[in-house]
Amino acid sequence: MTSTPPPPTSADVARLAGVSRATVSFVLNDTAGGRVGEQTRQRVRAAADQLGYVPHAAARSLRAGRTGLVLLVGSSAPIGPLFSGFYRELQQALQRHGYTSVLYGPSRGGGEEPARGWAELRPAAVLCLESILTPAGVGILHRAGTRAVLTLGTRPVPGAHALVMDQHEVGAAAGAHLLARGRRRIGVVVPGDRDLDQFSGPRTAGVRSAVASSGLDARVELLPLGYTEESGVQAAARCRELGLDAVFAYNDEYAMLLMRSLQDAGVDIPRQVAVVGADDLLLGALLRPRLSTVHMSLPKGEELASLVEQLVADPSSVPVTGNLLTVRLVERESS
Amino acid sequence: MTSTPPPPTSADVARLAGVSRATVSFVLNDTAGGRVGEQTRQRVRAAADQLGYVPHAAARSLRAGRTGLVLLVGSSAPIGPLFSGFYRELQQALQRHGYTSVLYGPSRGGGEEPARGWAELRPAAVLCLESILTPAGVGILHRAGTRAVLTLGTRPVPGAHALVMDQHEVGAAAGAHLLARGRRRIGVVVPGDRDLDQFSGPRTAGVRSAVASSGLDARVELLPLGYTEESGVQAAARCRELGLDAVFAYNDEYAMLLMRSLQDAGVDIPRQVAVVGADDLLLGALLRPRLSTVHMSLPKGEELASLVEQLVADPSSVPVTGNLLTVRLVERESS
Repeated sequence: MTSTPPPPTSADVARLAGVSRATVSFVLNDTAGGRVGEQTRQRVRAAADQLGYVPHAAARSLRAGRTGLVLLVGSSAPIGPLFSGFYRELQQALQRHGYTSVLYGPSRGGGEEPARGWAELRPAAVLCLESILTPAGVGILHRAGTRAVLTLGTRPVPGAHALVMDQHEVGAAAGAHLLARGRRRIGVVVPGDRDLDQFSGPRTAGVRSAVASSGLDARVELLPLGYTEESGVQAAARCRELGLDAVFAYNDEYAMLLMRSLQDAGVDIPRQVAVVGADDLLLGALLRPRLSTVHMSLPKGEELASLVEQLVADPSSVPVTGNLLTVRLVERESS
Repeated sequence: MTSTPPPPTSADVARLAGVSRATVSFVLNDTAGGRVGEQTRQRVRAAADQLGYVPHAAARSLRAGRTGLVLLVGSSAPIGPLFSGFYRELQQALQRHGYTSVLYGPSRGGGEEPARGWAELRPAAVLCLESILTPAGVGILHRAGTRAVLTLGTRPVPGAHALVMDQHEVGAAAGAHLLARGRRRIGVVVPGDRDLDQFSGPRTAGVRSAVASSGLDARVELLPLGYTEESGVQAAARCRELGLDAVFAYNDEYAMLLMRSLQDAGVDIPRQVAVVGADDLLLGALLRPRLSTVHMSLPKGEELASLVEQLVADPSSVPVTGNLLTVRLVERESS
């Protein structure tokens, strides 16, 4: 390791611009209000640029007692275009609201370990999956000064605000549709990727509850499916063994895989087996027969950024619970 | 806004555990070495848990002069499974190396604005797209103490380490393959999404250079294609007007869209028009005819995390340039 010259400080900027350190701080942290004239502002900015000085967010947050940081905690599950678009939009909206938002990778360790790691960054707000946050973790974050803890998931976590994405509804919509189409032996795809259990579990439960609430004499069978052509062939064979007349295939990609295998095995879709996916990918509409699907939508990033701002402003507010996900069945030719 | 009780401090932990503040710091920041016995460690941890105290990363980084933070700067372009998997793996590997890595959303503003925003967080390392970093931005980061600045892209940025993903090679592989299959009127899909220009530009140039270096009498035509069924129909009509006998379709998703439109228009694939995608998605292999594609691979996250660690340890090292992307043509039935 060799030494590099020490980074320039606000004192260096103050000297070059011929102003006080306080003035440098006012200008560069945008806290000047009307106290500093435009000419002085420009002189300070020019000096900072010349020296290459930028304020230190950590120092500023220590002075202010908190940061403008919003942690979005990622998941180890592969996320589709719906969620990656949602996160991208949310990050842009938070930036417009003056927050620095960062996507924090999936954490190691269980219990309160992840929350401890987030708390070290003293975020103003944390948005994470419900499945990785404990009530004690909420307490750790609050005590470390985090003003709003929000979870994404199917259930609220005590003490935190809950943005509920009711995956259950996705399965319920598919199940109700298949029952209405006269299907009575419904397979539900269980993806091979265990990281998807958090989504597929509630979706499967949704299909079951649609059957239960219908009062119809129908049955639900689980259909394991890995995301490979070989597994598709096995699942197609299993469909026939079980005598299924319909499958809710978890999402469109698994549906496309299963449809190919069923068609290669000579099964007529939808006459013999109806297939429904979820996500409403364009690729599903390109299949023949065109794939029926459950369309999901999430609120605009701007809406959620405003909510975060409001919750940060009033950390004592009673935990709010809001439903994020709205679902709608798109009926095409495959069901 | 209402007041919340002040967060517990290390002094509170020291008092409860009956040790000095220095001992608390040693234990909770894992810098104790052999200096603190196991019993004392446990007492400190228990006291911290009881009070809900976590160290403040910002304070620690101010003391240490730098953070263990690695900023991965995101892009506004939608990213496919290859890159989202790569980022996920890289974040996990960096965590194993003791770094906190966060994905920083796309920045507003041009020139040096984005680099200034990153510098405020005093990251130890920054990995960003080449297209949003200027040489002056590299200087700002270095002066703010960032020890390793790495870019992802097609060209190095002066002063920064360059991880080159040569998208040019993707187009060159597709072009060479189509020429070898006897095709001489090659369309290249230009996706409607302008955020993809950074990838599609070099891919198109790669097709052109494959044609130029072949010495064959072949021509290349641009084929605009938005990601909608209507645009697919128009592109298929344009294919016929131009008398194309092959298309490199940017990626597999655009290829699937174009293939559907060509087939609906009665075009025989590959006899009349050969189609090649890129990404090697499973869904392409499920089409009939099965889609030929350019397979891309990136290094393991662990490899890259080790490189980051090495560059952070020696910030004076000469900028390194490494090629990340390896490509391989997967010939199936569509070409």
